[in-house]
Amino acid sequence: MKISPKCPSCLLNRVYMEARMSTDDAEKIDRAVELALKILAEEYPKKGINAVIATRIHRKVYEVLEDEDPYREVKKRANEVSLKYLPEIKRIVYRDDAFRSTAKASIIANTFDYGVMGHEVNDSAFLDYFIRKFRESLKIDNLEKIRSLCKGRVVYLTDNCGEIVYDALFMKEIKKICERLSVVVRGRPIISDATYEDAVIAGVDKIADEVLDNGDGIGIIDEELPEKTKDRIENADIIIAKGMANYECLSDSAYTIGFLLTAKCEPVAKSIGVEVGDMVALLR
Amino acid sequence: MKISPKCPSCLLNRVYMEARMSTDDAEKIDRAVELALKILAEEYPKKGINAVIATRIHRKVYEVLEDEDPYREVKKRANEVSLKYLPEIKRIVYRDDAFRSTAKASIIANTFDYGVMGHEVNDSAFLDYFIRKFRESLKIDNLEKIRSLCKGRVVYLTDNCGEIVYDALFMKEIKKICERLSVVVRGRPIISDATYEDAVIAGVDKIADEVLDNGDGIGIIDEELPEKTKDRIENADIIIAKGMANYECLSDSAYTIGFLLTAKCEPVAKSIGVEVGDMVALLR
Repeated sequence: MKISPKCPSCLLNRVYMEARMSTDDAEKIDRAVELALKILAEEYPKKGINAVIATRIHRKVYEVLEDEDPYREVKKRANEVSLKYLPEIKRIVYRDDAFRSTAKASIIANTFDYGVMGHEVNDSAFLDYFIRKFRESLKIDNLEKIRSLCKGRVVYLTDNCGEIVYDALFMKEIKKICERLSVVVRGRPIISDATYEDAVIAGVDKIADEVLDNGDGIGIIDEELPEKTKDRIENADIIIAKGMANYECLSDSAYTIGFLLTAKCEPVAKSIGVEVGDMVALLR
Repeated sequence: MKISPKCPSCLLNRVYMEARMSTDDAEKIDRAVELALKILAEEYPKKGINAVIATRIHRKVYEVLEDEDPYREVKKRANEVSLKYLPEIKRIVYRDDAFRSTAKASIIANTFDYGVMGHEVNDSAFLDYFIRKFRESLKIDNLEKIRSLCKGRVVYLTDNCGEIVYDALFMKEIKKICERLSVVVRGRPIISDATYEDAVIAGVDKIADEVLDNGDGIGIIDEELPEKTKDRIENADIIIAKGMANYECLSDSAYTIGFLLTAKCEPVAKSIGVEVGDMVALLR
């Protein structure tokens, strides 16, 4: 999916937000925005993938800020909130068909995405949000086909911190039926995405056959992928791709992919053919 | 007031919004954003005034869109809504000291500002909004000093459509005590700001001694000012400057200015020393 004319504003808003989270140094904040603008003005006309451009921008911004992880606190809190409500949410989820309902839980938890313009994450009201969304139907529901493909070799691309706690529930169900479960987290801290450390917090390392990483990027960027991760992706029977950045990167790919996400912005929602706020489990 | 690192995102958001209001032509929308990004990347490091940079951007964007006034409908609606509730609001306003309460009405109506990121204009709920805000106190209240200076030559710089209907009420009170009332509207349609046509709709031409224009700009840009307008500004005993763009342009000027506005964004609020949402009548 190519960058949309709505993306630059959202990206700059996030750069400003992360700079403010990282420092009070007005000069650093200023240089971060200046640099982001410069890269965006260069890259936007080339119509690349937003998540790829965003990766380049955030990496440079982190350098300017001299901060390896401006989202440190936000990510920690997302994990804490998720773990706090886990017992209650488990009681709700396991009343139904566990494959379907844990998949849905992981889609609902895709709300833990900090910095999408117009999308508010209300940590403290997460349980209420969960209960409300759990009553809603998926707007696109290809879960039965996805279930069937999950009998083979599965690659599971995670997205945000917090969310990964609920991904773990879904992974447990996949693990019961699959041949091999390879989970891919981000190789380095970037925005609010989960890294290996978060996978451990969520217990993913005890569920999956292996926890790999995507190298250095938001989403799946071919040139960034470690050899083993590339191999697993190329030989998967299905890739479960969580969230918007993974969708942006893989929407035009030839792999068999189950995109599980909550559409949180207009360009992604439009590309999928749903409305902002809709939940989807789309097989492509 | 210099451009803040929060401004580029907001500006690009507005450019996208106005492009979408103007056309469905994806290529035009795309070129509008591309051009805005290019100008911003050039201008941001120079740390000029946001309203001046925004003027340059919107003018170029209007050219790309081949649209002299993308805000046509929005402006029309703001005037209609304001006129619709005028009788009801007059009844509220004239219970008190008319100079103070019409000034406040004009500050409340400064909410008719479309495209400030994070600021929602709810046309249909304007009366409720007005009643609620009218109960609030001004966060900075220099109205008595402003009243006293209004006994001389007054230049009144208007801001948005819709808002100008309530400016007219305040102008009537100024007119009762002043030596001369010169009202300055925008010389050409730009964003949601009032032009001569809107001044006539609001009846300003029947109240003021003269209705002048600011040339071509959002706010007061020296090089853009017609000779007569410049003369009136230089020889005013007080300038009443409505809204954020006029504040951005004049906050560091040596004139005697009464800034009347609702702070709708963080950079302006911070510059004044108030919170977003606060109403001020600040004499400087």
